[in-house]
Amino acid sequence: MSKVASFDDLCLEGLKDIYDSEHQITVALPKMAEAATSPALKKAFKLHLEQTEGHITRLEKVFELLGEKAARKSCVATKGLVAEGNEHMKEVEKGPLLDAALIEGAQKVEHYEIASYGTARTYATLSGKADVAALLEATLKEEEETDLSLTKIAESVINPKAVKQH
Amino acid sequence: MSKVASFDDLCLEGLKDIYDSEHQITVALPKMAEAATSPALKKAFKLHLEQTEGHITRLEKVFELLGEKAARKSCVATKGLVAEGNEHMKEVEKGPLLDAALIEGAQKVEHYEIASYGTARTYATLSGKADVAALLEATLKEEEETDLSLTKIAESVINPKAVKQH
Repeated sequence: MSKVASFDDLCLEGLKDIYDSEHQITVALPKMAEAATSPALKKAFKLHLEQTEGHITRLEKVFELLGEKAARKSCVATKGLVAEGNEHMKEVEKGPLLDAALIEGAQKVEHYEIASYGTARTYATLSGKADVAALLEATLKEEEETDLSLTKIAESVINPKAVKQH
Repeated sequence: MSKVASFDDLCLEGLKDIYDSEHQITVALPKMAEAATSPALKKAFKLHLEQTEGHITRLEKVFELLGEKAARKSCVATKGLVAEGNEHMKEVEKGPLLDAALIEGAQKVEHYEIASYGTARTYATLSGKADVAALLEATLKEEEETDLSLTKIAESVINPKAVKQH
């Protein structure tokens, strides 16, 4: 028998996956802030850590609204994304090049989150759960804003320095 | 000594990562087309397989323009994304629910590719390699179009059926 037999099951699996992913990110971000050289990037990672903690609280509210216990389902995709970031930290020396690589890794994670929250929000809307959809939408907007702010930091501060590294 | 010592090294690492990712996707897509029930979704996966083969050819052209040998660097993030899709195929019974789950997985992969090609294109532009940037931009546009077309299929065909599954 399959574990996911209804649309509600599918939604719940997705939420457990994101809930685990956000927890993994709270472990990865302090290491990324530590590895970053640019003060602007360090600050951005620290700010996003605070936001991520807020996303976890929001997800707990979502589970509560659905009458479900907040639970994590191991997110193998985030594991892969985090592992890729860790590889960069080993391969690239600290400085503008590693900063560029850290932004690249962080944006891949942001895009994973954008796809995940986008789907979860759509599912909640389809199920007529407007309160849940609003919470997921709020996080989705923050993930999109983080992605854009990372692009700005890359373009204005990091890349012009990284490109000069021969 | 670090393996990535220059901006050119960083760009090349990124391209090898995407080159591996695209190869992994050519293995995953036929399984996804096979698992899908909706004819529109099957067709979309088959079309994207053809496009992905085109993306591989384009990347080979990029390596050639850079005077480098086309080479793959194991992309652990894509491995994770593909593993997540395989999990869904085991957990969810064939039909609208699995179709919805397959779209979710495919969109996560698309977002990974969008982030990857976005960075690679920016790096190429920064390095003054307009011909390389143009090739990467062409693929980026196709990945963005695929993401949008999957959203349309989900909204118009798959989700209205999936949501009825109790």
